[in-house]
Amino acid sequence: MNNHITTIAFDADDTLWVNEPYFQEAEKEFCILLEDYLPQHSVSQELFRTEMQNLHLYGYGVKGFILCMIETISRVSNHTAPLSLVSKAIELGHELLQKPIILLDGVTETLENLKGKYRLVVATKGDLLDQERKLRNSGLQDYFHHIEIMSDKKESDYRKLLKHLDCQPKNFLMLGNSVKSDILPVLETGGFAAHIPYHVTWSHEQHDLNLEHEHFMELKSIDEILQYL
Amino acid sequence: MNNHITTIAFDADDTLWVNEPYFQEAEKEFCILLEDYLPQHSVSQELFRTEMQNLHLYGYGVKGFILCMIETISRVSNHTAPLSLVSKAIELGHELLQKPIILLDGVTETLENLKGKYRLVVATKGDLLDQERKLRNSGLQDYFHHIEIMSDKKESDYRKLLKHLDCQPKNFLMLGNSVKSDILPVLETGGFAAHIPYHVTWSHEQHDLNLEHEHFMELKSIDEILQYL
Repeated sequence: MNNHITTIAFDADDTLWVNEPYFQEAEKEFCILLEDYLPQHSVSQELFRTEMQNLHLYGYGVKGFILCMIETISRVSNHTAPLSLVSKAIELGHELLQKPIILLDGVTETLENLKGKYRLVVATKGDLLDQERKLRNSGLQDYFHHIEIMSDKKESDYRKLLKHLDCQPKNFLMLGNSVKSDILPVLETGGFAAHIPYHVTWSHEQHDLNLEHEHFMELKSIDEILQYL
Repeated sequence: MNNHITTIAFDADDTLWVNEPYFQEAEKEFCILLEDYLPQHSVSQELFRTEMQNLHLYGYGVKGFILCMIETISRVSNHTAPLSLVSKAIELGHELLQKPIILLDGVTETLENLKGKYRLVVATKGDLLDQERKLRNSGLQDYFHHIEIMSDKKESDYRKLLKHLDCQPKNFLMLGNSVKSDILPVLETGGFAAHIPYHVTWSHEQHDLNLEHEHFMELKSIDEILQYL
């Protein structure tokens, strides 16, 4: 990589801290709730279908996820499920909104090392209040110059972020676990991107990776980025 | 007012465009849905109670409002309501997320007049994606240098915004319809604030106003601000 990087942006969920396993736990419990109506794996497919249908209305985050669980209960049960199932879905959502923040390996050391040398930024999707809560509870807030909560992570969204940060693409490096959201759109802007795979990925974010690009790095863990800088 | 204002921030809902009447319409229909269980005005009180209980989890915006309607259905009906009521509440919410944007009187003329002379900013609460949609559909996007979607509008939130905008309080003017969210916390930071009352205000935002402050202006309509600048 070149030596011109001035700004490093980090995805948050499953890059700085555990997130997707919490959603998968909640989804598993949700599928069990509806087992009387449909096999678990089919409930999971129906939930995903609902999420994709509503993405343009709800965007990302836990509140939309709860609404999608509720809508799935209605559809899967043909409007016959008891209201108590809806209450249980809301409870699952409330639990998600109160999960502890578990930092991933190497995160604190990496930020500590980069602090003061680069402008560090968080660039994440999700509900505003929830992402702010997670950042506050992570104890990482002071490392970051700016928190950008984005409604989506397409190329145009990154262009807006770069403009807002007054940063050239060639000076920008993004780190994240989602090839689709954190890597490809950043490379399209001309920026640099490092992929740190996480052991579970939401279906919507899955993407086969076979990428060779001079602005791209594949890392095993977040602290490997230090070797490149 | 002094001549040192460089940055003018506008609240969005019920300052730039119609919002609260849409929510009140939806709430009215919601109360009718639950009339078999409770008189309409009591349903309204129960809904407000649910909203206040969940504010720390959901924050502001339509998605939280839908979830609160659903939770209120459960409580008010003692978990006996048919699931179809939940579907109707979700429909009411989807309608809210797709309402047309109606600009308030004088907004375009005022922005047109201020454009190029001041840095114009939107400072609003609510769901990220929904507020972005409203701004896009308003046709006003190009007037604004920056859109800040805030999880709350307390003094500390404005201090963060000012820091982020690299702006001193004495150079900052906020315009909005909510005394509680747009006026008082801004005055606390040392900034300037102009109140433009709107004919309906959500209970949570209501605040008796009897304010004399050298940084405060009471306007009848948004274009009156031009006389002060």
